[in-house]
Amino acid sequence: MEEIKVFAPATVANLSCGFDVLGCCLDSVGDEMTLKKNDLNEVRITGIKGQDLPVESDRNVASVAVKALLKDFESDQGFDIEIDKRIKPGSGIGSSAASSAGAVFAANKLLGEPYSVQDLIPFAMQGELIASGNEHADNVAPALLGGFSLVRSYCPLEVLSLPVPSELRIVVLHPLIEIKTKDSRSIIKQNVSLKSAINQWGNLGALVSALYTEDYDLLGRSLEDEIVEPIRSILIPYFQELDELSVAKGALGFGISGSGPSVFALCKGDENAENVKQAIREFYEKKGIEFDLHLSKINQEGVKVL
Amino acid sequence: MEEIKVFAPATVANLSCGFDVLGCCLDSVGDEMTLKKNDLNEVRITGIKGQDLPVESDRNVASVAVKALLKDFESDQGFDIEIDKRIKPGSGIGSSAASSAGAVFAANKLLGEPYSVQDLIPFAMQGELIASGNEHADNVAPALLGGFSLVRSYCPLEVLSLPVPSELRIVVLHPLIEIKTKDSRSIIKQNVSLKSAINQWGNLGALVSALYTEDYDLLGRSLEDEIVEPIRSILIPYFQELDELSVAKGALGFGISGSGPSVFALCKGDENAENVKQAIREFYEKKGIEFDLHLSKINQEGVKVL
Repeated sequence: MEEIKVFAPATVANLSCGFDVLGCCLDSVGDEMTLKKNDLNEVRITGIKGQDLPVESDRNVASVAVKALLKDFESDQGFDIEIDKRIKPGSGIGSSAASSAGAVFAANKLLGEPYSVQDLIPFAMQGELIASGNEHADNVAPALLGGFSLVRSYCPLEVLSLPVPSELRIVVLHPLIEIKTKDSRSIIKQNVSLKSAINQWGNLGALVSALYTEDYDLLGRSLEDEIVEPIRSILIPYFQELDELSVAKGALGFGISGSGPSVFALCKGDENAENVKQAIREFYEKKGIEFDLHLSKINQEGVKVL
Repeated sequence: MEEIKVFAPATVANLSCGFDVLGCCLDSVGDEMTLKKNDLNEVRITGIKGQDLPVESDRNVASVAVKALLKDFESDQGFDIEIDKRIKPGSGIGSSAASSAGAVFAANKLLGEPYSVQDLIPFAMQGELIASGNEHADNVAPALLGGFSLVRSYCPLEVLSLPVPSELRIVVLHPLIEIKTKDSRSIIKQNVSLKSAINQWGNLGALVSALYTEDYDLLGRSLEDEIVEPIRSILIPYFQELDELSVAKGALGFGISGSGPSVFALCKGDENAENVKQAIREFYEKKGIEFDLHLSKINQEGVKVL
């Protein structure tokens, strides 16, 4: 195979109580990427559509991730990468992760799949490192694997796939203001109270249980975050109102997607999700802030060949 | 019914990554308690066998817990409580929790079961409050409910029961040195690094997943605690050696039971657990420290009528 085109999905990381360890994969939002082998022994970004992103191969997350893979594989194969960038950078729904994950997935296919999809995670994390200064896996893992991913451990890296309740839907609002992940991370305190941490791990344990038992209400109750949300939500216009509005319309729970400014509402079933989406749309339209709004199933497949 | 005798089991709380939110119930270790109605409108401790514990009804955890139940039930029923105390106080395997849980379970039975077993947890927590200065639920919940209990939230109280992998065994070593829960709590730092907290909730999420999937190896890997264990283990003679010894003998994982000094090794199957138990016995006998040593299944029933 000389050329491949893939869909690289957006992802929602953290999910309130799972800061830095939990993420899930979206179905209806993502980039399209084309990788083509070249004979130049060089990884090049040969086209970016839709967004203004670096084309230098040591600054673009896609090429950085592919180069990490090639280094490990001890290959000097060259690739031309074209990105149809539909996920806006700085949106908080895993824009850099989609590019990193899509690129390593595609390169691996073109190389004859020397790696399992799970094994591609560390290479994609190298893309995250240059995007945010931090090698987090909670976007790239669900982008590659689909569904819900839990990072048990970063050192050594161990990522688990968790079951997906079939009626789960997610509404994602992206207020069109940009927050860089780097900036959004810098406002987080590096020490937390033990009491808050205990609440957080109690909720994360409950969330994992809720995924196994398909207990939607428990899933909603476990979407609490008293560590990061109180700080980051300040940067998101009308966060509190959106939270109350969504829950009043029947959402299971509401929180910040990744480092924001996108926010998400988890819902049970299409009808409920449509109601929540509509209410958020009407509210935000009145506020005069530009926004994107998505309703998605949980994508159980991750990156896929188109 | 005028009189009832119950078995009140010992419990292992925290289980490394689940500080203050997780506990499991033991099968082979516990107290026996007899409750008898009296006509004195008074809750009395009429006998304690085996240990030197307060008999004043506002200082004994069993009577305190029963009085909390009676207050909520708006009843002035009197009870005589006799305790055959086989769990040593200060052992770290839920001695006060067993008495509290056993007492409210028995009183509820004698009152015609106005409360569900789940609803008894807050009353039993009142016993924990006077025992340790802290209303924790991670011993009383598994003592009452059996199996693994996860405290999602303390306010409002929400406790989940998690599944029990059938081959799970637990070896508990109690070095006969006493550590008061109060003292053991006082050495814990009230602030923790966000990095450690993230590791902790990643592990707790994985542990919950492992219980659902019966993934024994994952269960073992998730038994990490970089928050409390590094501090509390200092109080436990040869903690590090016991940990290494148990894992070398095939234990899934090793940690501190509750606030210590008891330690536990989780094992898969009877044969493995026997090997680990034997190795711990031989090691500790050489060290000349008095100890108790138990091997137990996970008790799925909790407090039961004898």
